[in-house]
Amino acid sequence: MKNNITLEEAQSLVFDHCSVMESEQVNIKESFGRVLFEDIAAQENIPPFARSPYDGYAFRAQDTENASPTNPVILNIIDEVPAGYTSANTVESGTAVKILTGAPIPEGADAVIKFEETVILKNQVKITASFQPGENIVPAGEDVKRGTLIASKGTAITSPIMGLIAAIGQEDIAVYKIPKIAIISTGDELIDISEQLIPGKIRNTNCYTLFGNIQSIGAIPLIIGTAKDRKEEIAALIEQALDQADLVLTTGGVSVGDYDMVSRAMEYIGANLLYKKIEIKPGSATAAAVKDGKLILGLSGNPSAALTNFHLVAVPFIKKMAGRTNYLNEKIEVTLKKDFKKESPRRRFLRGRLVFEEGVSMMEPTGDQGNGILSSMIGCNILTEVPEGSGPKKSGEKLAAYLIS
Amino acid sequence: MKNNITLEEAQSLVFDHCSVMESEQVNIKESFGRVLFEDIAAQENIPPFARSPYDGYAFRAQDTENASPTNPVILNIIDEVPAGYTSANTVESGTAVKILTGAPIPEGADAVIKFEETVILKNQVKITASFQPGENIVPAGEDVKRGTLIASKGTAITSPIMGLIAAIGQEDIAVYKIPKIAIISTGDELIDISEQLIPGKIRNTNCYTLFGNIQSIGAIPLIIGTAKDRKEEIAALIEQALDQADLVLTTGGVSVGDYDMVSRAMEYIGANLLYKKIEIKPGSATAAAVKDGKLILGLSGNPSAALTNFHLVAVPFIKKMAGRTNYLNEKIEVTLKKDFKKESPRRRFLRGRLVFEEGVSMMEPTGDQGNGILSSMIGCNILTEVPEGSGPKKSGEKLAAYLIS
Repeated sequence: MKNNITLEEAQSLVFDHCSVMESEQVNIKESFGRVLFEDIAAQENIPPFARSPYDGYAFRAQDTENASPTNPVILNIIDEVPAGYTSANTVESGTAVKILTGAPIPEGADAVIKFEETVILKNQVKITASFQPGENIVPAGEDVKRGTLIASKGTAITSPIMGLIAAIGQEDIAVYKIPKIAIISTGDELIDISEQLIPGKIRNTNCYTLFGNIQSIGAIPLIIGTAKDRKEEIAALIEQALDQADLVLTTGGVSVGDYDMVSRAMEYIGANLLYKKIEIKPGSATAAAVKDGKLILGLSGNPSAALTNFHLVAVPFIKKMAGRTNYLNEKIEVTLKKDFKKESPRRRFLRGRLVFEEGVSMMEPTGDQGNGILSSMIGCNILTEVPEGSGPKKSGEKLAAYLIS
Repeated sequence: MKNNITLEEAQSLVFDHCSVMESEQVNIKESFGRVLFEDIAAQENIPPFARSPYDGYAFRAQDTENASPTNPVILNIIDEVPAGYTSANTVESGTAVKILTGAPIPEGADAVIKFEETVILKNQVKITASFQPGENIVPAGEDVKRGTLIASKGTAITSPIMGLIAAIGQEDIAVYKIPKIAIISTGDELIDISEQLIPGKIRNTNCYTLFGNIQSIGAIPLIIGTAKDRKEEIAALIEQALDQADLVLTTGGVSVGDYDMVSRAMEYIGANLLYKKIEIKPGSATAAAVKDGKLILGLSGNPSAALTNFHLVAVPFIKKMAGRTNYLNEKIEVTLKKDFKKESPRRRFLRGRLVFEEGVSMMEPTGDQGNGILSSMIGCNILTEVPEGSGPKKSGEKLAAYLIS
């Protein structure tokens, strides 16, 4: 068991115990946001045939080689082809086929002229300019060429990916199963949302915040229950959670005092403790253990400490478990919009909002940075890193930040 | 009916016909992503009482006025209070109460010393430094003060908002109902995903792309069906869609040729046409009408043309209908990462990805910009605007861009 480790060591330790989910088949209509278990490649050209992007006439470019306003070419209109149909005729020299937007280019034709650029005589079309072969023709495979990879295994399915999966005629898609994440709250001080407040008690908020956070990354939250500060009671809930979920989160009971019950509960059920404490602020109080190949992650009872750890350790873990190849939080550089006046003897993560000012990515703090503050998570979409041992930071200084979801 | 209007005129015309959804009550566990129909204000302080952020001892600061290593103060420990409980004792001068993290500050005490800073004698604690009133005490309302607005009507509920709603003990929340968006596809060339491709036909992709896009903004997509290029058939599907949905989207049949069937179908059912064509590229081919107070928005059959219009007109409309006060796409400034070599006689929107390089917000194109290209919507999270009448744009130039979701 390691103690007081870096964030990267903690991530590495939990990633080592990450079992990626199994697969299942879903219909395309249920696929939005799911993670691909298969590579999606185009077995066909998209679109499947060369077509006209305009309403106009299809003809042989060579016929217009010397065409000009003073030397117009007159072609006989031999057929009309709307979108969805094909012409049975072949376009020979001296002929043209009326063609509508999206219709396939008839055999023999290799150029299209827009309707509004022509003069129509009875059954004939007059062309007054020279055309190149291929002009105004959308080639087969313009969007995606046969054999091209559309989206790779481990990618979350977005709407254009859905459209392209439809384009290749695939109704069922292999995806990773969605991880179920158990939430256990611990603490004698906690009462549930529906209960009357009495002196000394506070309502359980972490459980609902995590419930929303887990949904926001596409996983399924399961509220297991609240345990008093007794290792046996916590242990019983963890055992129950391990039966139902792929990852167990607890909140509270991970400080180093008399009521550090969660790691004792972990040991009590025979889980293998990975670490206690990470050298970050907020979120240093934490513990991680593994049992039956499943991770149990103990988060702080302080809202922002719990959430910082959740975003920096649990979210990448859950994304990795969900099969995503890009599971780490994206790291960017931001410019501070306001001073941060405190010293940072320990590596610190500030809550803030990414804003754009004249093309510069700035961090605007979302409120008070205390461990117990949840309100400054509202609107927070980046955690900005202040290195260990830093003095106060001035507005205009540049820092690394992690995008969170 | 207006023709060939600006994007802003089109938005303004549709917004004028936007009926905001009614409300319903949901349990907090179903509230993630829903839009608040009520202001959420704290009726209580969060947290409800002053508490200790550490394991330590609570005492009267005045007792330590002259305390120092050479002049220590010795206080009698009269009680112990863990989190979740209160002390029945009042801290008088010369006494202290052992206090655990999260426990309420006992009556009479106004400062806390951390465990590790004390020396414990039998039933007594030795303090060797002077403390100020309030030191190491988290005041009641530290997170949110009684009366403070937590989240206002029209805000989408995020996870920290869920946590704070739980903190004030509110189990049911008034939210706007979720809009249902009907999708109708038109075109003789379309076949469904499960059908075999035959010459001249293409598979319907727009329907599935829109299905995902509608889900991604938190609305409910309804696939109504596919109509051939006949106004009566399209009209019948629109009538059916108006019965079931809050907004009707169609794709295809909005070009200006012989097969411009959607606006004819709109007129056929007695809908009031608002406009045809918007001066943007892609996405100029479009039509909008209103019937029974509901908007019918005709999008192009070309994937990117349809989606550009969807993101710039339909998304803000749907967000407004869903009750959101911030319904417009956020506008930012980006620096081009690559040259865009074409002229832009018409106002143009480029598909790209927002990337961050050394603190600068850059636009990296996601692929080919043609009207018929869907693949370049993969990874696209901004539409970058090239003003009407622009020449080629060089990498390094700055342009406005809209964040899309």
